[in-house]
Amino acid sequence: MNHGTWDRIRVVQYGCGKMGRVIMRYLMDKGAQIVGAIDMDESIVDKDIGEIAGLKQMTGVKVRRDPDTVLDNCDADIAVLTLQSFLHDMHKPILECATRGVNVITTSEEALFPWTTSPEITNQLDALAKDMGCTIVGSGMQDVFWVNLPACIAGGVHSIAEIDGAVSYNVEDYGIALAKAHGVGLSAEEFERDIAHSQSVPSYVWNSNEALCMKLGLSVEQMKQKAVPVFADHDVHSETVGETIHKGKAIGMNAVVTTVTHQGIVVETQCIGKIYEEGEGDLCDFTIHGEPDVRFSVRKPDTVAHTCATIVNRIPDVLAAPAGFVTMDKLPCARYLPYPMFINMQ
Amino acid sequence: MNHGTWDRIRVVQYGCGKMGRVIMRYLMDKGAQIVGAIDMDESIVDKDIGEIAGLKQMTGVKVRRDPDTVLDNCDADIAVLTLQSFLHDMHKPILECATRGVNVITTSEEALFPWTTSPEITNQLDALAKDMGCTIVGSGMQDVFWVNLPACIAGGVHSIAEIDGAVSYNVEDYGIALAKAHGVGLSAEEFERDIAHSQSVPSYVWNSNEALCMKLGLSVEQMKQKAVPVFADHDVHSETVGETIHKGKAIGMNAVVTTVTHQGIVVETQCIGKIYEEGEGDLCDFTIHGEPDVRFSVRKPDTVAHTCATIVNRIPDVLAAPAGFVTMDKLPCARYLPYPMFINMQ
Repeated sequence: MNHGTWDRIRVVQYGCGKMGRVIMRYLMDKGAQIVGAIDMDESIVDKDIGEIAGLKQMTGVKVRRDPDTVLDNCDADIAVLTLQSFLHDMHKPILECATRGVNVITTSEEALFPWTTSPEITNQLDALAKDMGCTIVGSGMQDVFWVNLPACIAGGVHSIAEIDGAVSYNVEDYGIALAKAHGVGLSAEEFERDIAHSQSVPSYVWNSNEALCMKLGLSVEQMKQKAVPVFADHDVHSETVGETIHKGKAIGMNAVVTTVTHQGIVVETQCIGKIYEEGEGDLCDFTIHGEPDVRFSVRKPDTVAHTCATIVNRIPDVLAAPAGFVTMDKLPCARYLPYPMFINMQ
Repeated sequence: MNHGTWDRIRVVQYGCGKMGRVIMRYLMDKGAQIVGAIDMDESIVDKDIGEIAGLKQMTGVKVRRDPDTVLDNCDADIAVLTLQSFLHDMHKPILECATRGVNVITTSEEALFPWTTSPEITNQLDALAKDMGCTIVGSGMQDVFWVNLPACIAGGVHSIAEIDGAVSYNVEDYGIALAKAHGVGLSAEEFERDIAHSQSVPSYVWNSNEALCMKLGLSVEQMKQKAVPVFADHDVHSETVGETIHKGKAIGMNAVVTTVTHQGIVVETQCIGKIYEEGEGDLCDFTIHGEPDVRFSVRKPDTVAHTCATIVNRIPDVLAAPAGFVTMDKLPCARYLPYPMFINMQ
């Protein structure tokens, strides 16, 4: 590579749904070069990303269905994967990138800190990424707001007994995969059977609690999770699942994750994901109980925009990180990118 | 040094007033070794720091009046200076430490980022510290809450037009000098004549705005400061000045610092210092106007405790930093120290 010139970071957008489209616009704003776009949705396949992402110009880059063909026919620095929440579902697409030595950043919530929830997949991907010299990172809203924000505030605290958090998001803002994982449309019995006692599916705050503990230098002694359904008290139409959720069926859930550490500090986070009513907004509230107590909150954070912005702002950190599956607690805080050109100076 | 054993960080506490006493307690909690204590206040000179800091034991370490004697008779890793706000007043005590190669961390608000408000002193201290192989850092509440907190949130934002902040403190918590400097008791005419147009003394947010811009990768084009009086709307008794401030007279002021950057982003922070009414608490509110907008706040932060905790948490960063006058924007975010032993593993 010629070190005497500027170069743009080359990105494959893998997943061109709601998040992928915002991310592509942000990437173009920051001067990245989108070299490929992958999605299976027939309504957008073969369309120009300029059209689907609402850019002011056509780019010549078309959404294509086949990941192998796209990844084999460009030289990408990084792929942005906006596909599924859980690592089991992300295994194949991450493999497709990592076997080619392409760095990965993903909105997969489990990927934020998957070492204990999917240790086999994570270890395998970590070893592969090290062999191929590429880096895999999970990020999004949680990176900045659920992990780095409380960790930042904790830097001004002398002693901590407990950290309590409450975060929420509107299930309607995401894809159908997320809605299903939140039990949307299930009856009380179905929720009880499929979701309530499942420890196999970690809440997003399971992974973010673990990342926060790592960031704070704490070691986890015990993790507990309970899923409390939130039921519709009247019929609610869901755009995302494309049907009406009848009164009495679940419109989402509150996952309460309690993390007990060997240092005696407890981290308990409520993660409320449901179909919002008119006027409701996202929550991001934390209290640190300690010396001194601190309460801080973000008012109705725009979770989609923050997730997409964090993903884009994180790209330089991913490119600078060592090879492997590198969780965000190992990276510096995500930084605002003040410049219009998004330069690869490696 | 023996790398095969743990060692405690050795600290001189320089200034044993309100802040110094809390810091000494925090230092002892974290397992630091206090090797000297300096203060000119006759009421505490020759007293054991265990007594004045409210520790559960006497330490044998006494508060002494003469800095040279204390600094010459111990081998300190770092001195914690809790003395004055402005670098002009801190020049001599920092010199006393730096000429001996002792690292310095200070609550001096100007020291947070003094490169443009006191460039000659800062450059001289920087050169000296590099010669002596020690590091000088300014920190406190502002480090975590006025700089790293908004910078952390900005890591989840795509584009920023303006950052607006409002922070406050109670003039009654400090001395009469601060109350007078804030115009307490002045009429509108007197405030206009004596305080409103003075640019000679930077507001604390002048320095923190500059540090925030550095942290965000922005370059400052213009700094503006105005002092807006806050008037009593009924008679208010001030313990600090020992008199009643009548309705219509100033109970403090709001210093508004506007920082315009070459990148077009404006940072405007209000620093409100006034006599609080019943039930009022400190403010720490920020809004980032951009994509997306974000509003976040800390509810009635305990400014004294946060300042002292941040100073102690910062010590490992100071010891790990390169030599020189290193402003906190060059350091990683302050981190919570989870362990009871505060170990020097250098």
